[in-house]
Amino acid sequence: MRVAVIGIGKMGAGIAHNLVKAGHTVTVWNRSRDKAAAIEGARVANSVAEAARDAEVALTMLSDDTALAAALNDGLFDALPRGAIHVSSSTISASLSDRIADDHAARGQDYVAAPVFGRPDVAAAAQLTVIAAGPAAVIDRAQPVFDAIGRRTWRVGDRPSQANIVKLCGNYLIVSSVQSLGEAVALARGADVDTSVLLELLTENLFSGRVHTTYGGAIVEKRYRPAGFGLDLALKDVRLVLAAADAADVPMPVASLLHDAALAALHRSPPESDVAALAEFAAKNAGLPD
Amino acid sequence: MRVAVIGIGKMGAGIAHNLVKAGHTVTVWNRSRDKAAAIEGARVANSVAEAARDAEVALTMLSDDTALAAALNDGLFDALPRGAIHVSSSTISASLSDRIADDHAARGQDYVAAPVFGRPDVAAAAQLTVIAAGPAAVIDRAQPVFDAIGRRTWRVGDRPSQANIVKLCGNYLIVSSVQSLGEAVALARGADVDTSVLLELLTENLFSGRVHTTYGGAIVEKRYRPAGFGLDLALKDVRLVLAAADAADVPMPVASLLHDAALAALHRSPPESDVAALAEFAAKNAGLPD
Amino acid sequence: MRVAVIGIGKMGAGIAHNLVKAGHTVTVWNRSRDKAAAIEGARVANSVAEAARDAEVALTMLSDDTALAAALNDGLFDALPRGAIHVSSSTISASLSDRIADDHAARGQDYVAAPVFGRPDVAAAAQLTVIAAGPAAVIDRAQPVFDAIGRRTWRVGDRPSQANIVKLCGNYLIVSSVQSLGEAVALARGADVDTSVLLELLTENLFSGRVHTTYGGAIVEKRYRPAGFGLDLALKDVRLVLAAADAADVPMPVASLLHDAALAALHRSPPESDVAALAEFAAKNAGLPD
Amino acid sequence: MRVAVIGIGKMGAGIAHNLVKAGHTVTVWNRSRDKAAAIEGARVANSVAEAARDAEVALTMLSDDTALAAALNDGLFDALPRGAIHVSSSTISASLSDRIADDHAARGQDYVAAPVFGRPDVAAAAQLTVIAAGPAAVIDRAQPVFDAIGRRTWRVGDRPSQANIVKLCGNYLIVSSVQSLGEAVALARGADVDTSVLLELLTENLFSGRVHTTYGGAIVEKRYRPAGFGLDLALKDVRLVLAAADAADVPMPVASLLHDAALAALHRSPPESDVAALAEFAAKNAGLPD
Repeated sequence: MRVAVIGIGKMGAGIAHNLVKAGHTVTVWNRSRDKAAAIEGARVANSVAEAARDAEVALTMLSDDTALAAALNDGLFDALPRGAIHVSSSTISASLSDRIADDHAARGQDYVAAPVFGRPDVAAAAQLTVIAAGPAAVIDRAQPVFDAIGRRTWRVGDRPSQANIVKLCGNYLIVSSVQSLGEAVALARGADVDTSVLLELLTENLFSGRVHTTYGGAIVEKRYRPAGFGLDLALKDVRLVLAAADAADVPMPVASLLHDAALAALHRSPPESDVAALAEFAAKNAGLPD
Repeated sequence: MRVAVIGIGKMGAGIAHNLVKAGHTVTVWNRSRDKAAAIEGARVANSVAEAARDAEVALTMLSDDTALAAALNDGLFDALPRGAIHVSSSTISASLSDRIADDHAARGQDYVAAPVFGRPDVAAAAQLTVIAAGPAAVIDRAQPVFDAIGRRTWRVGDRPSQANIVKLCGNYLIVSSVQSLGEAVALARGADVDTSVLLELLTENLFSGRVHTTYGGAIVEKRYRPAGFGLDLALKDVRLVLAAADAADVPMPVASLLHDAALAALHRSPPESDVAALAEFAAKNAGLPD
Repeated sequence: MRVAVIGIGKMGAGIAHNLVKAGHTVTVWNRSRDKAAAIEGARVANSVAEAARDAEVALTMLSDDTALAAALNDGLFDALPRGAIHVSSSTISASLSDRIADDHAARGQDYVAAPVFGRPDVAAAAQLTVIAAGPAAVIDRAQPVFDAIGRRTWRVGDRPSQANIVKLCGNYLIVSSVQSLGEAVALARGADVDTSVLLELLTENLFSGRVHTTYGGAIVEKRYRPAGFGLDLALKDVRLVLAAADAADVPMPVASLLHDAALAALHRSPPESDVAALAEFAAKNAGLPD
Repeated sequence: MRVAVIGIGKMGAGIAHNLVKAGHTVTVWNRSRDKAAAIEGARVANSVAEAARDAEVALTMLSDDTALAAALNDGLFDALPRGAIHVSSSTISASLSDRIADDHAARGQDYVAAPVFGRPDVAAAAQLTVIAAGPAAVIDRAQPVFDAIGRRTWRVGDRPSQANIVKLCGNYLIVSSVQSLGEAVALARGADVDTSVLLELLTENLFSGRVHTTYGGAIVEKRYRPAGFGLDLALKDVRLVLAAADAADVPMPVASLLHDAALAALHRSPPESDVAALAEFAAKNAGLPD
C-alpha cells in the first residue's frame, strides 16, 4: 500500500521503518526534516500535503491534540484523497478523535483511531499493541498497516474515540501504579525496609506484569531521569483522562489526585524527569533523603 | 516440632492441616471449638494457655490487633515456655508487632512476625508466601514450620514490624489497584467501551499479574459479593497502612483516598461485599446503572 | 444611557429593573419572551441583534459559556455598534472572557468583564458587588450601569479574565466551605453533638461571615432542596475553577476533591438540590440517617 | 476557690493570671519552673501532686495527649481530692477525654472537658470561648473558673468528649479554610490578580469572620513565620480529627487531604512555620516564586 507517516519521532521512526520493511510504499514527513530523512527506503515529503496527496493510508503519530490539529489544517484534510484512510495513532483526546471522524466523513475520507501500547524499542521491533476503533470495513482495509507494525490488533468499537478511551485507561493505570508504588516505597523506606526485597516479593507474587516490574525497578533504584515516559507526558495523559471522564460525567478521584501530584512534581523536579519522579516527589514529601 | 496453631479460621485451618501432614505434633485452639475439632490429626486445646503450654512454636492467625492482644493476655504470654517461639502470622499493626516482641523478650520467649500472602486455597495447598522478620537465628529455628505451609520464605529484616510493613504494602497496593481499575472501568462504561475487551487488553499487555487478573475479572463481571477479600478487611488494612505511615511521618495521599472510599462504600454496600465493591461504589458515583 | 440587558433570569430581572429605575433607557431580551416582557419600563427586543443595535452598553447575564457564545454569534458581535461596550456579567470561563475581549476589539467594540456577587434578592435591591476588569477608561464609561445595580464596584485589573478569576475564587471558596462544614457536621452527628449549638458557636467566634451562616444553617437544618445555589451550578463553577487553574499550571487539590464530590453527589441526589446537598452526600457516606 | 493550673505555657499563663485577678487561690505547676514562677500572686508547686493536693479545681492546659497522660500518672490521679474537679482545657483526643472521665469517676473525682478557642492574647484578656461538656452539676461548680477566664461558656453535652469534638471541628475548619485560601491565592497569583484586592473583596462580602481575615492576611502578605498557630500543631489537630472521625466511622476526605498536605508541608518548610505555610506549600507546588 501507499502509506504516509506523519510525525517521525521515536515512535514514528520505528513504525515507518517497519512499513518499508513490509514492502509498503512509504512517504514520511516530519517538522524537522532530518528525522524524516533518516528513514531508509522512504520518500521524504516537504509538507503534510505532499505526503498525504497520493496516500491510501496516512498514519499520524504526533505529540498531542495541537500538533495533530495543525497537521490536519496544514494539508491533511485538503490533500488526503477521497476514500483514503487517516489512521490516527497519537495519544489524543477522545473528543478530538470523534470530531476528526466527522470532519473526514464530510470530505469523503475514512478515519480510524489506532493508538498503540509500546515504547520505542517495541515499535522498532514491530511488536506494538494496536488498539483500533472505527467502522469494521475501514479497519479491515488498514489491517496490512497494523500487521506491519504490531504484534496484535485489538478492535474495541465502531466509534473512534473508544480506542482513545482504552489507550487513556491504560496510561491512567500506569500513572496510578507508579504513584501507588511510590507511596508504598516511601512507607517502606520510612520503616527501614529493604525496598528491593519488597519489590521482588511484590512482583513475584502479586504484580508480575510489565508496568510494576519496569517502574518498580526505576523507583527502587531511584532512576528518575532521563525520561522514558516523561512526567510531562504523564500529566498530559492524565489531563486527557480527566477530560474524557468529565465529558461522561464520571468522577475519577484517583485520576484527580494524580493530576495534582504530577503537576506539583513537574514544578518541583529537574527537567527531563520520568513519570517515576512521582515517587521522588512522594519521598520528598515524606522528608526522606535523596 | 510441637506446634500450636491459635486461630482456626479459613487460613489457620489450611496451615494446621499442612503442619500435621508434614509430621509436626500439632495442637489447635479456636474460639469456637468446632472449627478446631475439624483438623484431623491435631489435638484440640481448651484454652490458649493449654495450647501454648508445651509448644516449641505457637503460630497465631487471628483477625486483628484486638484478637491477638486478647490471646496474648488470655494465656499465650503466661503459658508459652521460655525459649519457645511465637510466630505471628495475622495481619496486624506494625506498632503492635514491635510491642509484642519486647513483651516476649522480657519473658525469655522468642518472637517472629510472619504474615503471609495467599488466599485460603493457597494456604490449603501449602503454597503461601511467608514474609518473616525477626532475629535470623529465631527464623532459622521456625523455618520447618514455614516450609510446611509455604512455597517460599522471604526474610525482610531483623525487626518484626518490617514483615508487617511489607504485608501492609502489598495489601495497600491490592486495594489501590482495585480502586484504580474501578475508576477506569467506570470511565470505559461511561464511554460505551466493552470492559471485558479492555480488561483482556490490559492484562495481556501491561498488568498480567495475579491482582489485576483476579480483581479485574470480578469488577468487569460485577462479582461484588460474596467476599473473597472483604471490603471491611480491606478498610482494616488501609487503616493499618495509614497508622504505620503516620508513625513514620510519611504522607500517603492515595491511601488516604482509599480509606475514605472504602469507608463510604462499606456504609453504602450490602453486607458481605468484596473489596471489588469499590468499583461498584465508583460506578454508582458515576451514575451508571447496576 | 441606552442599555441592553441580554438574559432576563432571576439575576437579570433585578438588574434590568434597577437600570430602568435609575433612568436609563433599557431594552431587554430573553430566550423565553415572557420573562423579558415582565420588566416594566423596558422595551422588549425580538432578537439579540435588535437589543444590541443601538445600545451604548450591552450587559449579558446568561447561564454559561455556551449561552454567551450563542448570544454573541446570534447577533451581539454583528449588531453592537463600534465604540459600544459589552459588559459580561455571567459566571463564565476565564479563557472565554479573554477570547471575547479580542473578538470585540477586532470589531472596534469595547469589553468589560463584570461578574457579580449576590443572590437574586441582592440584585433586586441594587446591592450587588460588582467585580470589574478591563481598560480603566472603559470601566469609567460603564460605571453608571454598575452604580445602578450594585453597592460597590471593585476594579481588579486591566485584563477582563482577572474579574472572572476573582469571581471563580469566591465561588470556589463557597463550595469548599460547604464541603468542609458538611464533613464537620457529619463528625459532630456521628459523635452525638448538637449541631445547632456547634454552628452557633462556630459562627459567633470564628466564621461569622455570610457564607458560613447561610450554608451552615441550611446544613444543620438539612435544607437541601430546593436550590438557592444549585449543586449543578456549583459543579459548573468548580469545573471553571479547575480549567483556569490548569491553564495557569496551578494544582488545586481541594478543588479537585470538590469536583469529584459534587459530581458524585449530583448523580446520587434528587433533582433541584442545593450545593448544601454536599453535606447530605457526606452524611450518607458516613452511614448517618436522613 | 482553690484552683491549680497545671501547664503554664502561653495559654496557661493568661489563664492563671486571670484566676488570681478574680480572687481565686491559685497554685501553678509547670515542667520548667521559671514560667510558673512568673505568675504573680500564685503559689508555685514543685510537683503535679503538690499542686493538686488541696485543689477544688485542677485545670490542665498541656500540649497533647502524652503530656496530659504524664501529668495524670505523675500525681494528678493520686493527689486530687475526692469530689474535686479536673477541668481539662488542652486540645486532646476525644477518646482520651472519655477514658479520663471513667478513671476519675473510679476515684470519686469529677471531670469536665473544657477546651477553649482564643489565642494567647485572648487568654490574657480573659476573653476565651469556653466549650464545656460533662455532668451539668459539675460544670455549675466549675463555672466561677470559666467566668474568670472567658467571655462565654458554651455547654455542648453531658459526655466530656463532646467538647473535644466541638473544639476539633473548629480547628479542622480553620485548617481547611487556610488550605482553601492558599489554593485560591495561588490561582490568583498564577493569573496575575492582585491578591490583596481579592482578599479585601472576599472578606468584605462573603467571609468576614475572624479566621478568613486573620489567615487570609497572613497568606496574602506571605507571613509564614514565626508561628501563631504552628503548622505542627495544625497537623496534630488534624490527626485528632481523623482519629475521632475514624472512631465514628465518618469519612472526612478534606481532613484526609489536610493531613497529607500538612505533613508534606511540614517536611518541606523551615522550622517555626505557621499553619499559613500551607499556602506557601501550595504556591511552591504551583511553581510560583517566593
